[in-house]
Amino acid sequence: MRLSEARVTVVGLGLMGGSAALALRGQVAALAGVDAHPDVARRAQALGLVPRATTDLAEALEGCDLTLLAVPVGAILDLLPRLGRDLPAPRLVLDFGSTKGAVVRAMADLPPEVDPIGGHPLCGKETPGPEAAEAGLFRGATFVLTPLERTSAAAMALAEDLVHALGARPLYLDAERHDHLLAWTSHLPYLLAVSLVACVARAAEREPAVWDLAASGFRDTSRLAASDLTMMLDILRTNRRAVAAAARAAAADLHHLADLLEASQDGRLREELGCRWEARRGFEVRQRAGGRP
Amino acid sequence: MRLSEARVTVVGLGLMGGSAALALRGQVAALAGVDAHPDVARRAQALGLVPRATTDLAEALEGCDLTLLAVPVGAILDLLPRLGRDLPAPRLVLDFGSTKGAVVRAMADLPPEVDPIGGHPLCGKETPGPEAAEAGLFRGATFVLTPLERTSAAAMALAEDLVHALGARPLYLDAERHDHLLAWTSHLPYLLAVSLVACVARAAEREPAVWDLAASGFRDTSRLAASDLTMMLDILRTNRRAVAAAARAAAADLHHLADLLEASQDGRLREELGCRWEARRGFEVRQRAGGRP
Repeated sequence: MRLSEARVTVVGLGLMGGSAALALRGQVAALAGVDAHPDVARRAQALGLVPRATTDLAEALEGCDLTLLAVPVGAILDLLPRLGRDLPAPRLVLDFGSTKGAVVRAMADLPPEVDPIGGHPLCGKETPGPEAAEAGLFRGATFVLTPLERTSAAAMALAEDLVHALGARPLYLDAERHDHLLAWTSHLPYLLAVSLVACVARAAEREPAVWDLAASGFRDTSRLAASDLTMMLDILRTNRRAVAAAARAAAADLHHLADLLEASQDGRLREELGCRWEARRGFEVRQRAGGRP
Repeated sequence: MRLSEARVTVVGLGLMGGSAALALRGQVAALAGVDAHPDVARRAQALGLVPRATTDLAEALEGCDLTLLAVPVGAILDLLPRLGRDLPAPRLVLDFGSTKGAVVRAMADLPPEVDPIGGHPLCGKETPGPEAAEAGLFRGATFVLTPLERTSAAAMALAEDLVHALGARPLYLDAERHDHLLAWTSHLPYLLAVSLVACVARAAEREPAVWDLAASGFRDTSRLAASDLTMMLDILRTNRRAVAAAARAAAADLHHLADLLEASQDGRLREELGCRWEARRGFEVRQRAGGRP
């Protein structure tokens, strides 16, 4: 099946689902949207993100070829066991969840008529909701695909077409490895951001002037602390061990830097910070070469 | 003396000094620039940041009413003892250094004909050099002023005028208190950023694919790791104790979050992360109310 012939249902009409719907317009045979929250469904339709939006999952999944699950991981894990049971079974299902191990394990138990594949678009912003949706959200982003053993070649091809239609680049990865690596690049940054906020908030209890001294450095480093709480909790609890290990590694490094500072080991400090400066620069160069913002 | 009557010399023609020179154009009686690096001085003049730029400090300080020291803290500490000794003594000196304790202590030893005041504009970006200078850099920013006991009322008034001329808002603060508070809002964010880069770089040694999975969350949280190394080392070594204490507090919090995760204390985790989400939101609201970006 080609993407242009597929009847697509987007489950979840917030930032991610709404943006996917906008980006897919005109590239698929039919597009429907569904959101459990009546208000979100109504706003998504009023904003023109989808031609029609409902709160009725059964209705939205009826006769659908490809379902995109653009809801937090917890909601994905609630929904998957219902497909082909109390809900119609779509031919293909691709999720957008931020952790993949638990999702792929749940997908393994789907009825045989469903062809599942895990996915994770590496993009987003803190502003949630359909109003924040934009067709270009996925442009230039890496879109991880985590196929199961049961995933057909046809499902993989259709998923790749979809990723390209969103303007993203597919990257195949084993689900467990995805979660292990994302603990470093995505979940650890969130924990560092919330730890920073906690430290500054505690300092502000003693000295409220602290907030007047928080500028762009604080703003950017703490940006992820504004992420959607339900989404983040689902991520943390479906990747506990790897995230906790990453947090402890960062804590050990912070103690190490404090040791160097207190011991006035400025030469070694300069050397180590220089290596990190170079590594950060390498990331920046790689980003630009990849056409990413 | 009014700012419009002052002959101003900007020492250091990189991002901060270059931006100050641009913003002050037409608001002062005369404007000169000096930079120890011939190439920077040449580029600053070619870019039109200052009407004339030199590498000769003695020449640039001759007959100057107000000197702005827009160089890293280490260079400020090297320069201050020379004023009124092997270099001409300006009537007023205001520095832009990121820590204030050591600077204010050095200012206390200036010859009596110099009227000194410490300053720290809370703005900047990672791109260094005169090419990055922009007249609007200080707009809406807090500009901390740390007067000494010997600072005259006239110097304070002129410094305030200057801050307003740059488009910033003056905030008076004791130098030691400034350093203590900035350890939380500015120096800790830098350490968190470099710890994140170190963790991801170490993970990449085992799995190079990690870099493909670093997206906007990593980018923003690690942004400060790209800061100018000399500037940051000067900051860290002139604020060792407070910075080390902040790093250890953040490390303790990261272990605490890892404990909650490993013990599956998800209710408590949600509660704590919710408080941090609220605190981050409060910062955002305050920033917007203050007209800051």
